[in-house]
Amino acid sequence: MNLEQAVQNKLDNLTKPQGALGQLENIAKQVALIQKTASPKIDKTIVAIFAADHGLAEAGVSAFPQEVTGQMVQNFLAGGAAINVFSKQARADFELIDCGIKVEPEDHALLTKLRIAAGTKNMLQEPAMSQSQFQQCLKNGETLFERWQLQGYQLVALGEMGIGNTSSAAMLMSILLELPLTDCVGRGTGHNDEGLKKKLNILGQVKEQFASLNSPSDIGATVSGFEIATMTGVILASINSSVTLVIDGFIVTSAVLLAQRINSDAINNLIFSHQSDEAGHKKMLSALNAEPILKLGLRLGEGSGAALVIPLIRSAVAMLNEMASFSSAGVSTQAE
Amino acid sequence: MNLEQAVQNKLDNLTKPQGALGQLENIAKQVALIQKTASPKIDKTIVAIFAADHGLAEAGVSAFPQEVTGQMVQNFLAGGAAINVFSKQARADFELIDCGIKVEPEDHALLTKLRIAAGTKNMLQEPAMSQSQFQQCLKNGETLFERWQLQGYQLVALGEMGIGNTSSAAMLMSILLELPLTDCVGRGTGHNDEGLKKKLNILGQVKEQFASLNSPSDIGATVSGFEIATMTGVILASINSSVTLVIDGFIVTSAVLLAQRINSDAINNLIFSHQSDEAGHKKMLSALNAEPILKLGLRLGEGSGAALVIPLIRSAVAMLNEMASFSSAGVSTQAE
Repeated sequence: MNLEQAVQNKLDNLTKPQGALGQLENIAKQVALIQKTASPKIDKTIVAIFAADHGLAEAGVSAFPQEVTGQMVQNFLAGGAAINVFSKQARADFELIDCGIKVEPEDHALLTKLRIAAGTKNMLQEPAMSQSQFQQCLKNGETLFERWQLQGYQLVALGEMGIGNTSSAAMLMSILLELPLTDCVGRGTGHNDEGLKKKLNILGQVKEQFASLNSPSDIGATVSGFEIATMTGVILASINSSVTLVIDGFIVTSAVLLAQRINSDAINNLIFSHQSDEAGHKKMLSALNAEPILKLGLRLGEGSGAALVIPLIRSAVAMLNEMASFSSAGVSTQAE
Repeated sequence: MNLEQAVQNKLDNLTKPQGALGQLENIAKQVALIQKTASPKIDKTIVAIFAADHGLAEAGVSAFPQEVTGQMVQNFLAGGAAINVFSKQARADFELIDCGIKVEPEDHALLTKLRIAAGTKNMLQEPAMSQSQFQQCLKNGETLFERWQLQGYQLVALGEMGIGNTSSAAMLMSILLELPLTDCVGRGTGHNDEGLKKKLNILGQVKEQFASLNSPSDIGATVSGFEIATMTGVILASINSSVTLVIDGFIVTSAVLLAQRINSDAINNLIFSHQSDEAGHKKMLSALNAEPILKLGLRLGEGSGAALVIPLIRSAVAMLNEMASFSSAGVSTQAE
């Protein structure tokens, strides 16, 4: 009997009708397979937020001004953002990774600096970053992941902050999935109809320039961002590890798309936390055959959805470990 | 400015785009209105499971034998069921209410006995209970609810256990919503096609006998169960209180339908935790204009879905209380 069968057997003998806990049973099974044991543990967890600025923001693709990236980073470090509140509720540690915010933040115990530059270039004019910068991002992600492994984290929830980054995510989606921009571009943090039209127009111009790109690393360098590329490195590093990564919304999922194109094994360790309200996310998830846990109409980013599912994942794993079996509890099984 | 506007203002000034936390913002607002304050608290919570036996089980409407009710009650008291695991994860207290299990359980610190009889009558032959028994159930629910208020519980999650009770819930749904039984009857804990057909056939006979019923208390006495009627009493008692009730799946929602028919105000204090996999639950929820939080394909009952959403409700409330505002955090607001 292989591990998958052993886990299924264990699930089917718990005091509940078979399959009665639906998607929660799948989550328990997935974490068991990631940890290579029928008794997995989710004790030590961390929420990691990747922040960077985007040169394209200058072109006016976002409903918020560019300085909000740095301001929100200060808010994260001060503990005042939604993700701080949700991380605390989830009993998860918190770490902020500066991948290239425009104004370098002061040192802080919760801050790790892996800065590539003070924001990407404006991709309306040139590639967002060089190939060597892109490779450095991947390497940074790998180094981070290895450190988390050494620290004993069993689960890492990925989130992001970067004014303009829904544009990068939409470009990645459009190129990697060969979908028209209208399927990929949404309202981001809160565009009205006019703002959305402007964003679509700008991204159309970007896409025209880079239509011939083909290799995933060229695409990543040209249209992603430092935070997206660093997360891509984390996701690639997770392959075959025993660490569960929890994927947040539209932007983190775009890093999954990119990682998958680089290595198609970059999927087994991932739990998709939610389907966001951002147009395009649903299609992105279905291209990955991903079944998100929550559909709450969230469109905040910051890892908010990823943090919110941690208690559900803990409950799924606790079910596998702590529930009585039919025989141990002396409960009769199904009659028919 | 009334309270609802004050809460909305508070939400809109937190450091996130307006509405970006979707359904979580609605939950926070609802709890605030229930507690009549813009700074609500969810500190003290309890999961309450109502258990009873059903005479109709003798007719073979369930995939599990009737003795499973009592066996699962022992499992709840021993801490081995899914709901024990989920309650613990949610840091909620746990209480089991015996509303009329066939074999009376021994006394236990987690057990409250409000027994009406050793199971209902077989409604294939006669009404499940008398009108005075039904009224006693409502009264028991009210007494329980008042005790929880005195104990300082801000949130009570309702769950149930009773072999045969999806049949009662389906009958209530069919009669109260005037829907054909085929829209209301599902596989329960795990019927195959044949079992489902048999269940439908038996419930068809029951419905024929009681087609002329009209008053909600006659309907409740004739086709519900002691656990459903006692929960109906709890739901009615919650009207205008400052306690949030969390509604589990198909069976608890049928108690809401009944309570609503008795008093249409029996809705504001209720949070609907999930849409279960049981056929009919979706229609039941939409008849109540209820927006469930989770859709995980659960079909266990026991309050499992209700317990699973407690951490999400806590996070929603913590957001309202603990997040920084744009002005306090020095973050720029939307540009357009």
